[in-house]
Amino acid sequence: MKIKVTQAKLSRALNNVSRIAIGKVTLPILNNVLIRVNDKKVSLITTNLDMAVVDFLPVSNSENGVITVPAKLLAEFVSNLPKDETIEISNKDTKVTITAGQYSSTINGAIADDFPELPEINEKSAVTYKIGVDEFKTSISQVIIASSNDLTRPALTGVYFNTDGDRLAIAATDGYRLAEKQLIDKVKSEVKAIVPANSLQEVLRSITDDVEEIEITFNEDLVRFRLGEVEIISKLIDASFPDYQKLIPKDCNIHATLNREELVRVTKLAALFARSVGGSIVCETKTPDIFSVKSIANEFGENDSMIKTPVTKDGKINLNSRFLLDALNALEEPEVEFNFSDRIAPILLKNKKSNKYTHIIMPLNS
Amino acid sequence: MKIKVTQAKLSRALNNVSRIAIGKVTLPILNNVLIRVNDKKVSLITTNLDMAVVDFLPVSNSENGVITVPAKLLAEFVSNLPKDETIEISNKDTKVTITAGQYSSTINGAIADDFPELPEINEKSAVTYKIGVDEFKTSISQVIIASSNDLTRPALTGVYFNTDGDRLAIAATDGYRLAEKQLIDKVKSEVKAIVPANSLQEVLRSITDDVEEIEITFNEDLVRFRLGEVEIISKLIDASFPDYQKLIPKDCNIHATLNREELVRVTKLAALFARSVGGSIVCETKTPDIFSVKSIANEFGENDSMIKTPVTKDGKINLNSRFLLDALNALEEPEVEFNFSDRIAPILLKNKKSNKYTHIIMPLNS
Repeated sequence: MKIKVTQAKLSRALNNVSRIAIGKVTLPILNNVLIRVNDKKVSLITTNLDMAVVDFLPVSNSENGVITVPAKLLAEFVSNLPKDETIEISNKDTKVTITAGQYSSTINGAIADDFPELPEINEKSAVTYKIGVDEFKTSISQVIIASSNDLTRPALTGVYFNTDGDRLAIAATDGYRLAEKQLIDKVKSEVKAIVPANSLQEVLRSITDDVEEIEITFNEDLVRFRLGEVEIISKLIDASFPDYQKLIPKDCNIHATLNREELVRVTKLAALFARSVGGSIVCETKTPDIFSVKSIANEFGENDSMIKTPVTKDGKINLNSRFLLDALNALEEPEVEFNFSDRIAPILLKNKKSNKYTHIIMPLNS
Repeated sequence: MKIKVTQAKLSRALNNVSRIAIGKVTLPILNNVLIRVNDKKVSLITTNLDMAVVDFLPVSNSENGVITVPAKLLAEFVSNLPKDETIEISNKDTKVTITAGQYSSTINGAIADDFPELPEINEKSAVTYKIGVDEFKTSISQVIIASSNDLTRPALTGVYFNTDGDRLAIAATDGYRLAEKQLIDKVKSEVKAIVPANSLQEVLRSITDDVEEIEITFNEDLVRFRLGEVEIISKLIDASFPDYQKLIPKDCNIHATLNREELVRVTKLAALFARSVGGSIVCETKTPDIFSVKSIANEFGENDSMIKTPVTKDGKINLNSRFLLDALNALEEPEVEFNFSDRIAPILLKNKKSNKYTHIIMPLNS
């Protein structure tokens, strides 16, 4: 195996793939990046068993071969070399030599036979969607915040891609809140698939300025995200997602339209006093035009702020302030709709104009 | 007690003082800021028993009184209020009310009697120095890196301010390395005092853009740093600092002048391979003109880089790569002098032109 490539290209590619090569002591080869050269095509591959990142590297000169090398060590070594150097990587058995001008080092690699490569997507049974990168980034970020870390409920640790007629939506819930976004309006093929939130985080991190469109391909148990020269392949979560449409309240009778920044501010102020009570705050409406946010009096003191805005009915609800702040950060418009019914039904938050994003939060017991 | 002040002024002052109010559970009042109003002068004071931070706050309207309030809660509350609001703080016993427009809250404070204020500097027996803020920042940063965290050797956890004739120098050592800087050239009064590194870090953090000069005042057991409206008063460390001049090698016979960035680069490259051996790297000179930096071969591999530069004699020394990088970051000029004698004597690093900063590093056993 031999490749000759500029520092800039190699460093970018190694940084892309080396993030997921995280020291699993039980299977040390997962720390390594697989370098495969085949007919002048070079691929760099890392995997954590649940997902793999592949970067296709354009090189000026190469000899076929395959080897694995500790990914972080190689990435850090290359990133410290001068930007304008040409780097040569070659191997003799598992000794991998990297040279660049007066710099030279030998890294102990490992043969590729033991490297657990993910299966390839079966293109025949696959469905593919394309989406602009900005829309993708915004939408995933809006939904992923509602996903769970609780590994005992695997369905909730992912984002659910699901078609309903010709619309593709994504949704996530941790049991306390739920976020849904209409992702693509006119799609031809159906999908119901839960993509691990961790894999989506990695996709978000891999998006660089030169990527304009993302291609998403599903088959039965895998999803592939293609972003320019990078491919991220992930296993799907094999579980069934809750029938979340049923959870979205349809008939709230208390409505308020609020300035989002103002609501963020009063929520933060109340949250400061709510630390000793698990972040619990009280939102209250008083006709005709008072929306107030309070903390419950405790050892630190108490706090009460009000916003003047028309409200349709008197009401009161206890919420986790962190969840409310997360939702308000995910909403995009200057004005947002705050809807609820009584103390035990969830609240429904939406942008005032656009109807594409829905966020619901379960109330706390009062 | 009552004060009326703009959000911007109050928020800046509270952020200055609240950093050191760090939840010591054994003495909860250390979480509080003392607010004292006396003849239209307002002072905000926090302390961690070793040091105190005092901010003098200009206010438009006030009534005398004194109270203490949880510092972080008050600072965060005020920083979340709108920038253009006028804030009113008043108390009724220990209930402290903060109002600003439609925002209002009551924080549970505590009476000031239990607040452990530091003694004042006795101005009669004091000596004072003045120094430009940039020179101060650079010099403290260059020296403080060599101080120790080892509380069993208190003298080494500080920076030693010491006069020798009409020169004021500062020095720090952790037993493995030593840094010294000539701080002021012509001083009239003598000082020998060890200032805790933590207090100096706090002084560095408190420097804002509008501060041009720092006034440093010592008496027997205290030091005061005055920066505009902020005063930081710290206890001195009651211990004797090693006679460090004896530690600085006087007659190195191996000299090399090196490009600092180049030496940083090769040291970083070697350090990557030195993780499993405690960061140990080997610097080697070969006449007439080779300076090389190597890692010792180990499970990861090995690394060898060389720099072409005239050297006076063949030699070899083992160093901790992190210490060498710290020293190179503290040196300022593009060219640095690297001097050593044999494997057991310390190396001496200096800027090529300026003679004011000295950094020595003990070698590792090889």
